[in-house]
Amino acid sequence: MKKQEQLHKIRYSVAHILAMTMVAYDKNVKIGEGAVTEDGFYYDFKFSDGKTPSPALLKKFKKSIRSRIKQGLTFETTKVTNPQATEMFKDEPYKLEIIHKLKQKEITTHTINGFTDISDNTPVSNTKDIDPNAFTLTHISGAYWQGDKNRPMLTRIYGIVFNTEDELKQNIAQKEEAKLRDHKKLGKELDLFTFSDVVGKGLPLWTEKGATIRRVLERFIVDEEIKRGYKHVITPDIASIELYKKSGHYPYYKDSMYSPIVIDDEQFMLRPMSCPHHYELYLRKPHSYKELPIRMAEVAKLYRYEQSGELSGLIRARSFSLADSHIICADKEQAKTEIAKALDLIEYISKVFGLKIGKNYWYSLSLGDRLNEKKYYKDDDAWNASEKTLREVLTERKSDFVEEKDEAAFYGPKIDIQMRNVNGKEDTAFTVQYDFVGAKQFNLTYIDKENKEKQCIIIHRSSIGAIERIIAFLIEHYGGAFPVWLAPVQIKILPIGENHKEYAREVFSILKNTNIRAELDDSNESLGKKIRITKLEKVPYFIVIGDNECTTKKTMVESRDDGKIGEKTTDELINILQKKP
Amino acid sequence: MKKQEQLHKIRYSVAHILAMTMVAYDKNVKIGEGAVTEDGFYYDFKFSDGKTPSPALLKKFKKSIRSRIKQGLTFETTKVTNPQATEMFKDEPYKLEIIHKLKQKEITTHTINGFTDISDNTPVSNTKDIDPNAFTLTHISGAYWQGDKNRPMLTRIYGIVFNTEDELKQNIAQKEEAKLRDHKKLGKELDLFTFSDVVGKGLPLWTEKGATIRRVLERFIVDEEIKRGYKHVITPDIASIELYKKSGHYPYYKDSMYSPIVIDDEQFMLRPMSCPHHYELYLRKPHSYKELPIRMAEVAKLYRYEQSGELSGLIRARSFSLADSHIICADKEQAKTEIAKALDLIEYISKVFGLKIGKNYWYSLSLGDRLNEKKYYKDDDAWNASEKTLREVLTERKSDFVEEKDEAAFYGPKIDIQMRNVNGKEDTAFTVQYDFVGAKQFNLTYIDKENKEKQCIIIHRSSIGAIERIIAFLIEHYGGAFPVWLAPVQIKILPIGENHKEYAREVFSILKNTNIRAELDDSNESLGKKIRITKLEKVPYFIVIGDNECTTKKTMVESRDDGKIGEKTTDELINILQKKP
Repeated sequence: MKKQEQLHKIRYSVAHILAMTMVAYDKNVKIGEGAVTEDGFYYDFKFSDGKTPSPALLKKFKKSIRSRIKQGLTFETTKVTNPQATEMFKDEPYKLEIIHKLKQKEITTHTINGFTDISDNTPVSNTKDIDPNAFTLTHISGAYWQGDKNRPMLTRIYGIVFNTEDELKQNIAQKEEAKLRDHKKLGKELDLFTFSDVVGKGLPLWTEKGATIRRVLERFIVDEEIKRGYKHVITPDIASIELYKKSGHYPYYKDSMYSPIVIDDEQFMLRPMSCPHHYELYLRKPHSYKELPIRMAEVAKLYRYEQSGELSGLIRARSFSLADSHIICADKEQAKTEIAKALDLIEYISKVFGLKIGKNYWYSLSLGDRLNEKKYYKDDDAWNASEKTLREVLTERKSDFVEEKDEAAFYGPKIDIQMRNVNGKEDTAFTVQYDFVGAKQFNLTYIDKENKEKQCIIIHRSSIGAIERIIAFLIEHYGGAFPVWLAPVQIKILPIGENHKEYAREVFSILKNTNIRAELDDSNESLGKKIRITKLEKVPYFIVIGDNECTTKKTMVESRDDGKIGEKTTDELINILQKKP
Repeated sequence: MKKQEQLHKIRYSVAHILAMTMVAYDKNVKIGEGAVTEDGFYYDFKFSDGKTPSPALLKKFKKSIRSRIKQGLTFETTKVTNPQATEMFKDEPYKLEIIHKLKQKEITTHTINGFTDISDNTPVSNTKDIDPNAFTLTHISGAYWQGDKNRPMLTRIYGIVFNTEDELKQNIAQKEEAKLRDHKKLGKELDLFTFSDVVGKGLPLWTEKGATIRRVLERFIVDEEIKRGYKHVITPDIASIELYKKSGHYPYYKDSMYSPIVIDDEQFMLRPMSCPHHYELYLRKPHSYKELPIRMAEVAKLYRYEQSGELSGLIRARSFSLADSHIICADKEQAKTEIAKALDLIEYISKVFGLKIGKNYWYSLSLGDRLNEKKYYKDDDAWNASEKTLREVLTERKSDFVEEKDEAAFYGPKIDIQMRNVNGKEDTAFTVQYDFVGAKQFNLTYIDKENKEKQCIIIHRSSIGAIERIIAFLIEHYGGAFPVWLAPVQIKILPIGENHKEYAREVFSILKNTNIRAELDDSNESLGKKIRITKLEKVPYFIVIGDNECTTKKTMVESRDDGKIGEKTTDELINILQKKP
């Protein structure tokens, strides 16, 4: 914490010195407002006519700031009255506006080498406390004064500041990497998905390559779930508004739902969740205790409202497909076992993607709040018991977890699987939820051993979350270089000349018939160019077909990750390419 | 044709004799209207108070009719004037209403043994021409006079009439079979899908078993298409209304579309077709002639309006998934080749389902109408050329086909693959369409060898049509006894006693891990009952596990279709069950 406080002081101090430097650069500059950010600061200025600095000047400013830091200047902090401050900043209209808005009588000023600024932030005592190589100015943008588009446009200068040069470099490298791995950028470069204005915002169109990743991923998860006893069903993407009234989602969930579709005087909704659909399916016939638990699963297309400003590639779209399941259990013991099994599945899948618990993801136990009856279903006993159950599951499997209060669903507590994306942003990737309300709402029951009707308990869970979101995550996680089982194109076949094309086509045809995602580049481009394209496309393997290959019927296999891996027959090649996750 | 005319006469004559019989049964009966149907006739009557016949009386009526037929009675046909007819039928209010509505001066009457009726139908000359064993009365229902629910309710009696007793028996047997095979009946019995009032009419919910058939079928068609060079994509199920304005579908298609969904002042539509979505995907980047043809395919969820009265199981639902494709071609020659390839695919798939060309399906060439500019895009040259192309494709592959005028799409002619369902009803199952309009509308172009921009030609085609409809068809085609590759449960494992359960579980686990759809019945029911259930479920294979099996690790495999097929090791069993279509 102390380190973080010191860093905050340093960041403010560099911002202060930037303002000082701007006054030296343009004596008529008017100083706006600045702020310390999560990796540095920004500061807004109104430069006098024609003096708005070009981004190229940032280097010069940086040098000036650095030399000021090296001078070992001391910050002097003074408290002045509001009228005194008004007098001091009489030529600074933006500062005056701030001063007049401030209701307090005393205003804090910081002065360094004759340059005074007002701020509630604390600077370092002497610039010696700042590593002159641990900061940089990154970019310039426009910003309306007070964020109001009817007020003047100022120039905002951004800086990054750390304790040490190493930390700074690390942060910059991380950002560069994140930019390169950004799923929107890679999605376009690798031709995985696109958007069309006339189709609509937030509605991705998946190209052949992107759709292939989706298909492979969906089949993988569906097959894995089936092996683990899940029953995959298919239910409609729209339903009568009555269904959501019955489930209690409407009107609580109304704001996240799109406007109704009218069919013959009835109102239908694009579904925001699949729970009530699955409950209706359960209700088609009576059930015995022998059938439970029923693990009803679906890759369910859902529609939830997102403001157009918040849409972002595949992460925030207006429709997404959730690898969803509702596990209908007989009792608490069964629910507990099923929660553990759901976590087993999540841990298995995470392992397939090379994600490590503790490093790439961690458990968060999201609890309710007994006092908040508006947000949470009132049933203290049920809350106590189900929270205890979830805590036990995590403790028994020796999983580390954090407890988060007031983060539960309205129908019960949940275990969230939190992940960090390449930008370091934390997000809930998967979730396992305990629901003691849904079965009551829909009267989901079963006949027990004593031939009595009993109410079920429901576990909601997503195994790989939303397909769109996990693919966005995986694009960034793999930097577009998908493992062979997921890669949209698994191998490229590159014949050198005209007389190698026949054999190349033969190999291509054999691979295609084995359901291998092969691509043949039989264009007349040079081999060098063909290889370059293959590498840009991040295809896991390629083979070159020349005279030798046509004679021996063996090809040198080149791997994207491991280089040349030896001469292989077509059968051996197929074995390599059919590698499962 | 002559035979058909004669049959029509016979059917009318029997209806006439039924009316005569009803007068003998109830001398105050009032006679309504009758009609010849596709397998017989119906006739409506208003019986005097308390005389409405019970269905049990049908047998008696049948006997009376038969004895009248055997008498060899002669029909006498006379023309009378409208006033004469009015006088003749003065006690028959329904007949009078018909006579008054008739504008013609002369009215035809037919008299047999003193009983006169009016009709434009022609009877046989003598009842000797009727086989007295080739008819039956089937059932009774209520029917409003003139189909108007504000007019009186009459009693409608239905009959089936054929030329010979054999034909009659054949027709009855076919109907019984169709009733047994009805996909709605089997869908419920085999627990494949269900409906929920609160989810909404025409929106099927697929159970685990039904969803399994769907998944297997979808994967089969997607994989087969990919092998044949199709590029499977995924596009959104909703789109801005602007997309359908751009494509020209809206407002022409408006009545088949559901009402708009409003998102932030924009209107979005549930898509009724995927063409414009695929065109937008094509437009994401420029294309070279080297890339064409591009066979863009999708199992596309579509929404088309159906009146609630017309909804019928999976055949007519409010949403369905079409195995759709748009093949974007460079020119007419390429289009021609692609149409032939699409037909190859359709013929291959039909063969997989055991459907024979000529017997189960046939080609229909649907042509436009140069004079109907409202219904068809005006471009006579394009119509002439494309109709010629389609005709050539069919002729060159030596396929029989019928030509149907005025059955084309608005954008070009098409080849429809017509099928008959178990009820004998004809329907278009698949279609291949030539489109010379879409590319113009969306400006779909490519760069040709001379580096010039050229317009594409589009082929629309469905390979297995709508998934819902083909499954309904296949349920009826197979009578619910799906081949092993499609069966929702491929094998059932039936341990006899408690001490056989462990080995049964072992075999079950091995099969599940090989992705085989196995089910274990480890209940305490008797073996006899377990086998009975298995047979009712129409599971293709089962194995019984007893002492012997636990020792030898071999099981006697029983096939639904072929009986006992020998003792097999688990590996041999897997081989049998992994049989591809």
